[in-house]
Amino acid sequence: MKQFEKTINSKMIYDGRIVKLRVDEVELPDGSYSKREVISHQGAVGVLCIKDGQMIFVKQYRIASQQLLTEIPAGILESGEDPEKAAIRECQEEIGFRPLNLFKLGDFIPTPGYCSERITLFCATEFIWDPLEEDPNEFIKVVKIPLKTVRALFINGHFIDGKTVAALGYYFSIAAREYFVE
Amino acid sequence: MKQFEKTINSKMIYDGRIVKLRVDEVELPDGSYSKREVISHQGAVGVLCIKDGQMIFVKQYRIASQQLLTEIPAGILESGEDPEKAAIRECQEEIGFRPLNLFKLGDFIPTPGYCSERITLFCATEFIWDPLEEDPNEFIKVVKIPLKTVRALFINGHFIDGKTVAALGYYFSIAAREYFVE
Repeated sequence: MKQFEKTINSKMIYDGRIVKLRVDEVELPDGSYSKREVISHQGAVGVLCIKDGQMIFVKQYRIASQQLLTEIPAGILESGEDPEKAAIRECQEEIGFRPLNLFKLGDFIPTPGYCSERITLFCATEFIWDPLEEDPNEFIKVVKIPLKTVRALFINGHFIDGKTVAALGYYFSIAAREYFVE
Repeated sequence: MKQFEKTINSKMIYDGRIVKLRVDEVELPDGSYSKREVISHQGAVGVLCIKDGQMIFVKQYRIASQQLLTEIPAGILESGEDPEKAAIRECQEEIGFRPLNLFKLGDFIPTPGYCSERITLFCATEFIWDPLEEDPNEFIKVVKIPLKTVRALFINGHFIDGKTVAALGYYFSIAAREYFVE
C-alpha cells in the first residue's frame, strides 16, 4: 500500500503574519478519508555562534510557552530568501556580530505532523562587530556561556527551545570526539 | 526592562482536532503593542527505541511537508495524560513492542515562537511484544537501522523530523563516550 495522502479539498481558515492555517480533506492509502489541519510557514534559520570558547545565546519571552527561553540567534526567512543571507542578518540584528564563516549543521522540520516550517541550522566561529537595528517587536538579551557549561546544561535539560536543542545535538554529536573526550 | 508580554486581548480563530489558533494583542516591555499568532497543542511524546543493536523507526507520509519521513515512534498526549503512559501506548500502537524501561532524554518546545506544543522524549532498550491496534488515520511502516548507521545518517542530515533530530542529538551527545569512541 503506497504511503501517500491525496488532497481532495482544501479550506483556508486564516492567513496571518507568521502562519497560515488550512484544513485539507485527504484520501488515505486504504481509500478512506480524513481531515488534516495544515499550517504553512515561510521557514527559518538558526545559528550556533561560538566565539572565544563561548556560545552566544539570546533570551526572549515567548508567549506561546509563557516563559523566557534561552535560544540560538534565529529568524524567519523573507520570501524566497537564501538561508545563509538570513542567518547573517539575524546574527547582526540579535547579537551585533556578523559571522564570517557559516558551517551547515543540518536542517529539520520541527513539527511535520501539522506545519510546513523548515529550519536550517548553521554554526559560525569567526565574527566581526557589525550590528544591524533590532526587530522592533523583539526584546532580547544576549547571554554568553562557556562551551563545556553549555554541554552540561544541554544534557541536563536546560535548553528547551526546539532549534536550540537540535543545533546543540548536532554540534555535540559531531564534535564529541575532538572537544569533549579526554 | 522586564522581558514580558502582557496579553491585552485574545481572539479565538479556530478550534480543531490537533491545533487551536488564536491571535493575542500584547503589550511589549517598552509599552508599545503588537499582535501574536498563538497555536495551542496538547503536547506529545517520542521514544527512541533500541533493540538488538538497532533503532526502530516509523516511516509516515506527512502532508504538511509533502514527503515520507523517518521518525521515532511518537504521538499526541490525551487530555491530562502522563507522558510515560502515552509513550508506552504509542510504541505498542506503532511498532507492536511495549517498552519495559523508559529513560527520559529531555523535553522541548519545537516552535516556541508561535506554538505551545511540548514534546517529552524517552529512550527505551527493553521490550516485550504486545501490540495495540494502530490509529485508523495513520499508515506507517516500521524500519530498523543498526546504531552506527543511524549515527552516520544523523550526522549527514538524513533525519529531518524535529523530534527525531532532538532525540538522536540527545542520545549521541550523551552516549558518545561509551558507544562511539574507539
